[in-house]
Amino acid sequence: MDDQKFRVEVCFSPEEFDLYEQEYTTVVAIDVLRATTAICAAFDHGAEAIIPVSTVEEARDYQSRGYMVGAERNGKVVEGFDFGNSPFSYMKEEIRGKTLVLTTTNGTKAINKAAQKHEVLVGSLINLQAIIDYLIATPSDVLLLASGWQGKFNLEDSICAGAITESLLESGKYMSDEDSTIAAVFLFQKASVNYFGFLKASSHRRRLHNLNLNEDVKYCLTPNLTRVIPVYREGKLVKMEPWQ
Amino acid sequence: MDDQKFRVEVCFSPEEFDLYEQEYTTVVAIDVLRATTAICAAFDHGAEAIIPVSTVEEARDYQSRGYMVGAERNGKVVEGFDFGNSPFSYMKEEIRGKTLVLTTTNGTKAINKAAQKHEVLVGSLINLQAIIDYLIATPSDVLLLASGWQGKFNLEDSICAGAITESLLESGKYMSDEDSTIAAVFLFQKASVNYFGFLKASSHRRRLHNLNLNEDVKYCLTPNLTRVIPVYREGKLVKMEPWQ
Repeated sequence: MDDQKFRVEVCFSPEEFDLYEQEYTTVVAIDVLRATTAICAAFDHGAEAIIPVSTVEEARDYQSRGYMVGAERNGKVVEGFDFGNSPFSYMKEEIRGKTLVLTTTNGTKAINKAAQKHEVLVGSLINLQAIIDYLIATPSDVLLLASGWQGKFNLEDSICAGAITESLLESGKYMSDEDSTIAAVFLFQKASVNYFGFLKASSHRRRLHNLNLNEDVKYCLTPNLTRVIPVYREGKLVKMEPWQ
Repeated sequence: MDDQKFRVEVCFSPEEFDLYEQEYTTVVAIDVLRATTAICAAFDHGAEAIIPVSTVEEARDYQSRGYMVGAERNGKVVEGFDFGNSPFSYMKEEIRGKTLVLTTTNGTKAINKAAQKHEVLVGSLINLQAIIDYLIATPSDVLLLASGWQGKFNLEDSICAGAITESLLESGKYMSDEDSTIAAVFLFQKASVNYFGFLKASSHRRRLHNLNLNEDVKYCLTPNLTRVIPVYREGKLVKMEPWQ
């Protein structure tokens, strides 16, 4: 073990975040299906900023003040809101240059939990390589925080975290020590041949399939559609300035 | 999905137990390195009962009342106690017919958490096949509760849970739905060729190695050394009566 290296570890659920968080300076919040993918898609299509809120009540408050607000619970748009967390909702002309507000079942909670202390980045499969490149170019002690599903472990976020971890370890700049990190890399290696086939096994994917969201799932599982890295600054997510 | 089947699922950490527990009638508490292995070894060597307690203070109280008490924290015997959680401590003539008391970093907490509501069995690799046979012969909705390490995911408990799950699914009497369960089975399949080699990767195993506990680890990772199934009844663990 080389003490000069930075650490990269994986936390499978926001429920366990408090057990990990004190040792890291950077947290990457991951909610592949679909919040962090939708956030990356929104910035890729010109959104100016996104305010992540944890409750529907906060979201309603912003809505009453004229913001465009997305709210999702259990895979569905909450009644009375403009959109949920489908990435396609954020590819429209009317979001360009706007500050949006978003609350989702899992993803925005993970972001807000992490935001209390750290540099927080938003990761997904669609900006996978951008996240990897940034963390290799500007290394720090990194915790990859899977959003999970209602606090529980989920496959797609863990696999995304495993993909990031594998590349960081291969860079030679990072080491890892936690069993969760080893497991995430194994799961990624098992899945990497065919994300989509592997995640047929995923309960969350089945839930979205039942909601006729197959197109969303395909988009969310496609790596490297954008170089955008959303970063949390003073209460909102903004697009990171070019860093290389 | 067949509604007639029973469910078997894996919970990676006691921290997540509350998110799972309401749906299950049987919980198998697993702490391969080393609490649940030591408990199985104790019954295999004639212990009458084991009272699992969560705190060192409770353990001291029992000790002052004349019980033989084991107490382990962070892999070491707590000063002033008879033994820790090394299985070899429980293979002695003086424990035969005795009621012991035990507190450990992770395992006894998992048992006590589960004991509030459910039928609780104690699982390990050393009684793996006995647990599998019992759960197939008397099926119910089963949650496999990994003890983890200080609340975090660990490999050896997850792999043991994956081994149980794979056999229960193959029996045709069980189904599973959670991503954690799918992941545990994958990790078991990856590990099953060579537990010992695989767990070289495990941080917990490294910790024990540093404490010169290699013999303990070898014992704990050896499947099917006993047919004993410890079960929780009215505040203590006892040996399950023959069930077939």
